Amino acid sequence: MNNTQTFNAINPATNQSLDKAYPVATEEQIDEAVQNASDAFDVYRKKDKDSIADFLDCSAEEILKLGDALLERCHLETALPLARLEGERGRTVGQLRLFASVVREGSWVDARIDTADPERSPLPKPDVRHMLIPLGPVAIFGASNFPLAFSVGGGDTASALAAGCPVVVKGHPAHPGTSEIVAQAFLKAIKECGMPNGTFSLVQGNTNAVGEALVKHPGIKAVGFTGSFAGGKALFDLANSRPGPIPVFAEMGSTNPVFILPGILREKAEAIATGMAGSITLGVGQFCTNPGLTIFQQSEVSEEFQNLLSNKIGEAPSGTMLTPGIKAAYDKGVVITKSIDDVEVIAKGKQEDTPNSAQARIFKTSIENLGKNAALAEENFGPSNILVEAQSKEQIFNVARGLKGHLTATVHGTDSDLAEYVELLNILEKKVGRVLINGYPTGVEVCHAMVHGGPYPATTAPQTTSVGTNAIKRFVRPVCYQNYPDLLLPSALKGVNSLNIWRLVNGEFTKS
Amino acid sequence: MNNTQTFNAINPATNQSLDKAYPVATEEQIDEAVQNASDAFDVYRKKDKDSIADFLDCSAEEILKLGDALLERCHLETALPLARLEGERGRTVGQLRLFASVVREGSWVDARIDTADPERSPLPKPDVRHMLIPLGPVAIFGASNFPLAFSVGGGDTASALAAGCPVVVKGHPAHPGTSEIVAQAFLKAIKECGMPNGTFSLVQGNTNAVGEALVKHPGIKAVGFTGSFAGGKALFDLANSRPGPIPVFAEMGSTNPVFILPGILREKAEAIATGMAGSITLGVGQFCTNPGLTIFQQSEVSEEFQNLLSNKIGEAPSGTMLTPGIKAAYDKGVVITKSIDDVEVIAKGKQEDTPNSAQARIFKTSIENLGKNAALAEENFGPSNILVEAQSKEQIFNVARGLKGHLTATVHGTDSDLAEYVELLNILEKKVGRVLINGYPTGVEVCHAMVHGGPYPATTAPQTTSVGTNAIKRFVRPVCYQNYPDLLLPSALKGVNSLNIWRLVNGEFTKS
Repeated sequence: MNNTQTFNAINPATNQSLDKAYPVATEEQIDEAVQNASDAFDVYRKKDKDSIADFLDCSAEEILKLGDALLERCHLETALPLARLEGERGRTVGQLRLFASVVREGSWVDARIDTADPERSPLPKPDVRHMLIPLGPVAIFGASNFPLAFSVGGGDTASALAAGCPVVVKGHPAHPGTSEIVAQAFLKAIKECGMPNGTFSLVQGNTNAVGEALVKHPGIKAVGFTGSFAGGKALFDLANSRPGPIPVFAEMGSTNPVFILPGILREKAEAIATGMAGSITLGVGQFCTNPGLTIFQQSEVSEEFQNLLSNKIGEAPSGTMLTPGIKAAYDKGVVITKSIDDVEVIAKGKQEDTPNSAQARIFKTSIENLGKNAALAEENFGPSNILVEAQSKEQIFNVARGLKGHLTATVHGTDSDLAEYVELLNILEKKVGRVLINGYPTGVEVCHAMVHGGPYPATTAPQTTSVGTNAIKRFVRPVCYQNYPDLLLPSALKGVNSLNIWRLVNGEFTKS
Repeated sequence: MNNTQTFNAINPATNQSLDKAYPVATEEQIDEAVQNASDAFDVYRKKDKDSIADFLDCSAEEILKLGDALLERCHLETALPLARLEGERGRTVGQLRLFASVVREGSWVDARIDTADPERSPLPKPDVRHMLIPLGPVAIFGASNFPLAFSVGGGDTASALAAGCPVVVKGHPAHPGTSEIVAQAFLKAIKECGMPNGTFSLVQGNTNAVGEALVKHPGIKAVGFTGSFAGGKALFDLANSRPGPIPVFAEMGSTNPVFILPGILREKAEAIATGMAGSITLGVGQFCTNPGLTIFQQSEVSEEFQNLLSNKIGEAPSGTMLTPGIKAAYDKGVVITKSIDDVEVIAKGKQEDTPNSAQARIFKTSIENLGKNAALAEENFGPSNILVEAQSKEQIFNVARGLKGHLTATVHGTDSDLAEYVELLNILEKKVGRVLINGYPTGVEVCHAMVHGGPYPATTAPQTTSVGTNAIKRFVRPVCYQNYPDLLLPSALKGVNSLNIWRLVNGEFTKS
């Protein structure tokens, strides 16, 4: 095997190449990783639920044990502040533990039992029992913007492992050192918990070829991805063109429109301007749920609101973006937006003269212009926002009706605003995965009820979520067993409910 | 509008064209149907659960009220016996009522509530509430082989309407009269129950263009299909190539392998031969779950088994197939199978000299030959089966390992057979939607635990089922509401559980 091709991470704060060259995985290495995952699958999927839960908990523990070395390398590779990375590590560990608790509780398998009725006429009723089983090895693409929580040991990995699927992670090329360190934690947990080798592996590379070879491999049964529309769509098309198509769970981001209704703007213009400025610039705007579009209705306070927001943005420090490529794409997006007729720049953040430092921007345009220019509805990943002033309630509804699929939509309103604009909420729930009232879309709670997803083009899999416990459902499929002797049934479906899980028995939820 | 193009049904028993010419839907008519469905969606999806359940029950009632006129026309168009059609009508009505009961009970919406914790540090925890909401108008393709239960008013229609989605059905061109009669029942139920026009509509046509225009229409949000691999795959590709891809739930049939283990063959050769012959020839073999491949291990009884099966098949009367096209395809499949080296015909059923009458066939070949000829693993829709004699347990496992995705797999075995071949069950559950022990795959129980689905190429949507109450989940997606005032939440998610449904509240299943 000839491993001559390597790549290095770049420190975005200095544009300097970081030490250690990482080999680009060869086709043979990718094949080996998938073969190992396929072999591991037959063992791993039959582990009892407590063993899998323990393995997830152990992986979390091993990540914590990596200590500051992980955070420091990650900081060098991403320029994300250490405090943020510490918080993100907490989120990563918390996700693993939450999935461990879901697996340990066990009801997620959707056990369903319809018992036989041999006397039924004209045909006897068979005994049929249903549960969810894992799909097989999953390819997971690490995201650039959450180098811990949506990367090697992130939500996709946690949910796939929880479902009983081995994972082969394609590390994001912007943080190969971080990826390698986190991978070590999983490899240790595998040993400690006696899981088969191949339950987890990492392949690295800075070329599309690595990811493509992975997705095309017949042993891979599903794909998890968080990143750009172009990247996610390419994987979706690739996966659908395989001799055996597989599902691609690609979360591709969106513009996350925010609607500010007239009553609340009168009452709380300053608080909302402060909140919006914070949400727009948080993490240098590098969140999938970053708000990129603000729609409000013209009133005697709308100019004040714009001024307040502009002032806040004017004070916003610039921040180092994750990669030179992301910074260049953001700047290009700013230039494109500015170049559109009837778009004005109403505020700029501070600009420091350091590498990859991004300056926040607030643009303004008219409703008519928004309707005419598809580019204004595209996400520009970074700290920018386009304000759109509507003249009427009907115009606001029409903007909402014209939206493509987004991850989130937010509405700010008083109780009477919301009563008057209830149709807006009806429209928005058809367009997004999460509707928020009087909040900000950044910040995605990891919980049972979260939906981090939404209609295309926000994702390629609108029927799923990539955050929260329901994310486990992406990596399973239902199977049913007809007329099985009790001895041969999986534990979840035996006559005696020894796992003490909720089951649907002849149509009734029960633990008995 | 220029409706010059029409088509007629053909009576397969006589090859005569039946009276009444049905217009081929124009693009304008298809567009109108989808527009009406889109308009209806906003009203229909907000109906309370009891209203939707009543509408489903009422539709069932209206189908029954169609009386013998429905069965008689259907018999003319399909040559299916009246008794079978009466049973199928019962199944159709039963499906609608079962979905009505699921909707009325209400817990299927997967309500999840994570309550707020404003005191949480470092960030307050928001209130997040999750449920499943309908996708929007669904295009449904009627199947030829179940002109009632998988057609205009069949399982796809029942589950889509239950989910809150309007449907636009593309009727199967083999039974346009049946389709039109059933459509009348839904239109009556719409009026009776005060549902919006456009909740249900039927478009007809004998060209691919009608279905293609429907699937490409931007107002269509999902597709349900039961039929051939070629048809399902074409719709899948078409849907994925739309500017906004949509899910295609295509159930495309399979060979449904049956494994007969040595011990039970010794004990029950005659009973199994009788059962297999019945399952192979049931309904002239025109079921998605018809068994097309039988694998057994060579022993001193294997020849006896073959002789018993051959004798049973030799006595099997021929039956009229659904359409001249299906009959021609079956005969072509028989010719292709026969032409493969080392394939012998070991039994033929009776052949009557009537139009479209199909003769049952049993072929036999070796394990090696099965591995070499991909064509032997393809479904030949109709009453034929290929027997494959294995020399060893390992050969049987290898046949199973080499299977593509199927709807079902069946294993016949004594307790000690099953203990010895448990690895076979492990392999099969990875390959199919339903594994049966000591039964026959034909006959798909409509119940909570049924999975009528399976890995590609049996379906384009292995994560779903098209039969049973879980079929409703195909036509919904999750949405979550963050920090909503109680007043604005859907009933399923309000603080007071007035619907009395099961909800996951802070991780605990509860009705309180």
